[in-house]
Amino acid sequence: MTSSGMQRPGGRTARVRTAVLKAAEDALVEVGFAGLDLGDIARRAEVGRTTVYRRWGSVGALLADVLTDMAEQSLPRARTGSLHEDLRANARLVQRTLADPRQGALFRAVLLAATCDPAAAEALHRFYRTRVDEWAPCVTEAVERGELPPGTDPAEVVRAVSAPLYYRMLTTPDPLDEPTADRAAAAAESAARAGAFRPAGPEVI
Amino acid sequence: MTSSGMQRPGGRTARVRTAVLKAAEDALVEVGFAGLDLGDIARRAEVGRTTVYRRWGSVGALLADVLTDMAEQSLPRARTGSLHEDLRANARLVQRTLADPRQGALFRAVLLAATCDPAAAEALHRFYRTRVDEWAPCVTEAVERGELPPGTDPAEVVRAVSAPLYYRMLTTPDPLDEPTADRAAAAAESAARAGAFRPAGPEVI
Repeated sequence: MTSSGMQRPGGRTARVRTAVLKAAEDALVEVGFAGLDLGDIARRAEVGRTTVYRRWGSVGALLADVLTDMAEQSLPRARTGSLHEDLRANARLVQRTLADPRQGALFRAVLLAATCDPAAAEALHRFYRTRVDEWAPCVTEAVERGELPPGTDPAEVVRAVSAPLYYRMLTTPDPLDEPTADRAAAAAESAARAGAFRPAGPEVI
Repeated sequence: MTSSGMQRPGGRTARVRTAVLKAAEDALVEVGFAGLDLGDIARRAEVGRTTVYRRWGSVGALLADVLTDMAEQSLPRARTGSLHEDLRANARLVQRTLADPRQGALFRAVLLAATCDPAAAEALHRFYRTRVDEWAPCVTEAVERGELPPGTDPAEVVRAVSAPLYYRMLTTPDPLDEPTADRAAAAAESAARAGAFRPAGPEVI
């Protein structure tokens, strides 16, 4: 950004972005990715169409910015000092997010967008990478404390907590409740303790 | 079906269904659920539009029949006599299916259809229920052989094998290869052996 384009944090540029991202999320929840339209989003945000077209240019670029914002808004990891409690906190955060009507619909919409749009897929992969990187130290520290075998892949443990919750949401009519979250965390922890998330090949311990 | 509507197995009715379901799958892979159109599917199948409209009536009903057919075509479970080998066979079957360009695209399309259409969701849930029921005896028999703790929930173990493969497909750019499948099976097995898939509450053993 050039000096002429500089804005105070929280100034008009930030306010416009907040309004447009909120409108884009509303549209994703209501009409899905296939129905996204920059003009409609500008109207919802009460922002000029030209501003939206100039700043984001395409639905794909706007969706990427929605995902960047979702990553920025994502809560920091737990630091309980116990792998069991950290993984449970992670599972409950994922469960509450997916079970929330608006957030759940938003996640389903962006997962769907990613299956039909390569730019959306790339942004989605970045979002999940950011989230996994945020929570991975819970596992690294558990290895350092001797709670998990050396060589355990932190990212795979973090993904193992989320995977059953997403799978349940997509393939069953069953509710995503807190006991489900706790079971997902416990299963990932058991598998990690048994060494299931060390790289394949020769034993590392 | 009344006697006047009876058809020999493999007769015209069956041939029409096969052609229309194949055309519907092609359309799902190419244009996704949002782009499905019964007239287009009739053209692809080289079947009269009236036949397709009379027999299926709506895109949702046709998608439900595609999923019924996918469940019928789904391979029978493994019977190796070992939990480890049975779960690995299941994981590799899921991995090969999702990694196959056509089958993978078809599964992504029906998962997405289910997020925006209640009838599609119901049909999808039936498909996964059928698949879980097919593989659950691998777990029941492992409990009977003493390989797993009594009270282990067979459906949850079967779902735990698939979940990381679907999650990886949807949230990462990483390939779905055979080592990934084997790790998913091993993680589910470890968690099951540790008792992670018994109902919550008082210990059952």
